[in-house]
Amino acid sequence: MPESATELSPLAERLVSGDKRALARAITLIESDDPAGWDLVREVFPLTGKARITGFTGPPGVGKSTLIGALTAELRKEDRQVAVLSIDPSSPFTQGALLGDRIRLSEHFLDKGVFIRSMASRGALGGLSEAALQAALVMDASGKDDVLVETVGVGQGEIDIVDHADTIVLALMPGSGDSIQALKAGVMEIPDVIVVNKADHPMTDTMIREVRGALSLSHQPGEWRVPILRTEAARGEGIEELAAKVAEHRAFIEQAGTLADRRARNLRSEVLGIATARLRRRLEATIHDDPAVADLLERVVNRELDPSTAAAQLLEGEIDV
Amino acid sequence: MPESATELSPLAERLVSGDKRALARAITLIESDDPAGWDLVREVFPLTGKARITGFTGPPGVGKSTLIGALTAELRKEDRQVAVLSIDPSSPFTQGALLGDRIRLSEHFLDKGVFIRSMASRGALGGLSEAALQAALVMDASGKDDVLVETVGVGQGEIDIVDHADTIVLALMPGSGDSIQALKAGVMEIPDVIVVNKADHPMTDTMIREVRGALSLSHQPGEWRVPILRTEAARGEGIEELAAKVAEHRAFIEQAGTLADRRARNLRSEVLGIATARLRRRLEATIHDDPAVADLLERVVNRELDPSTAAAQLLEGEIDV
Repeated sequence: MPESATELSPLAERLVSGDKRALARAITLIESDDPAGWDLVREVFPLTGKARITGFTGPPGVGKSTLIGALTAELRKEDRQVAVLSIDPSSPFTQGALLGDRIRLSEHFLDKGVFIRSMASRGALGGLSEAALQAALVMDASGKDDVLVETVGVGQGEIDIVDHADTIVLALMPGSGDSIQALKAGVMEIPDVIVVNKADHPMTDTMIREVRGALSLSHQPGEWRVPILRTEAARGEGIEELAAKVAEHRAFIEQAGTLADRRARNLRSEVLGIATARLRRRLEATIHDDPAVADLLERVVNRELDPSTAAAQLLEGEIDV
Repeated sequence: MPESATELSPLAERLVSGDKRALARAITLIESDDPAGWDLVREVFPLTGKARITGFTGPPGVGKSTLIGALTAELRKEDRQVAVLSIDPSSPFTQGALLGDRIRLSEHFLDKGVFIRSMASRGALGGLSEAALQAALVMDASGKDDVLVETVGVGQGEIDIVDHADTIVLALMPGSGDSIQALKAGVMEIPDVIVVNKADHPMTDTMIREVRGALSLSHQPGEWRVPILRTEAARGEGIEELAAKVAEHRAFIEQAGTLADRRARNLRSEVLGIATARLRRRLEATIHDDPAVADLLERVVNRELDPSTAAAQLLEGEIDV
């Protein structure tokens, strides 16, 4: 443990010693936007950067949670400490599918080497992304070897957490035509590893050919070659290879020097993201609290004042940033 | 024409008289972020609010441009003036598919009653969304009856332009499994009209059943019932019904009083969006220009200072908003 640990607060000390309840408490503080949560992250941040952060994305229904559950079991065989962070997209509609998925992780709930947590959207998009990164940081600080972050994204993920991952796994299944089109059209960013789950489906071969075709448009020589894996996560098939490919990708970027670049870029963009999210929140608060701003918006609604001029007036006069 | 028109600048005057070249010039000014573009929007904003704004979203490859082309032909039969705004997502990869799509609109290029324009991303997400709204406003001011806005979105559209539409059409095709899952899971917002294009495909019936199943989860009594239409846009089939349903939806929300609510909400959120985008841009400029900020970020990268504290310092000390 580094020297600075001697100056840690009791909660931080318990956290870095690997106490599960301290980790749970830390994430609750972060999720509820408690200043104590921010303080805690500040304390432990120098101790972060050791965990391997893997982000999982892909359309709903492909079995990401089952995949993560199976990968967790695989990583436990190597005695790696695993933390799973599952992010619910904000939605006014049913989230049954996602809740159902999460249950599939339950076999690990009693394993001391595994920590599972889901975070729900708190409405503001920036807010959730921000909180998710903080949660990943405390998981890292608590000594986890692997932090697996799950988010639902079709096309460009609406939650930026994948931007904080060392390795991004895109999960698809036979029938994921939209995602393939999005890869082809360049609307979706190329991930580091692609998994075609539910590979017992008769259309799997066709699917894999299509994915390969979509990828061939963007591959550059000397770059990491994105592997396309077949898995049946529910039966544990193909999971060993997934674990191997994640480790291989991580080693590849470490050796190529791009891990440090990627992390530096991600951290820089995180600072900007947090700052922008806070500015937006302050703006929103002004809109609710200040009658002059309400009046300004009313004039826009009545088409007396255009949105751009109103925005300029809002920035110039009304808010105290 | 309202009284204020007498005070308009020459370009604004030409624009509101319906001059196509003036409209093209206006959008170029907006796209290049020329202050003259913002001034123009300010001038003509009181004259906007008359056009029917319809947003088209859906995964790439479903034929949105062909659909819009066919709908344009249909609207021209009713002698309605049509403007089409096509938005390219930012992408470092091939955009061939999108360029190909746009060519399908070319049959309308010689029709004086049709104006077609595409806008490419200028990098900043907020920036493009912002510019697209301004473009839609000048199209409205130029006397178009219909403004059709096309954007690529899988899941929640990354371009917020659909938030500015009166009616949102989601285009799918047989094989759009990811989008259906996203609708079911509540990750994708429910549109106002759903079109299953390429309906000559044998899987169309299955597809329509799945869409209906996904919608049934969210339908509330008394609310607009989202129609699911079959089209074969390339052969013009089902387009008359699409035109009718778009008109019907618009009439429904007008009668229910929700059109005014929706527009008010959209305009308020637009002001906030423009203000936030500008704040973010100022922040980004500071990061590039100010060595103290570069130093701050370097400390984050070296894990000496956590992202949240760095963001706070950025907001407190460094930027002049």
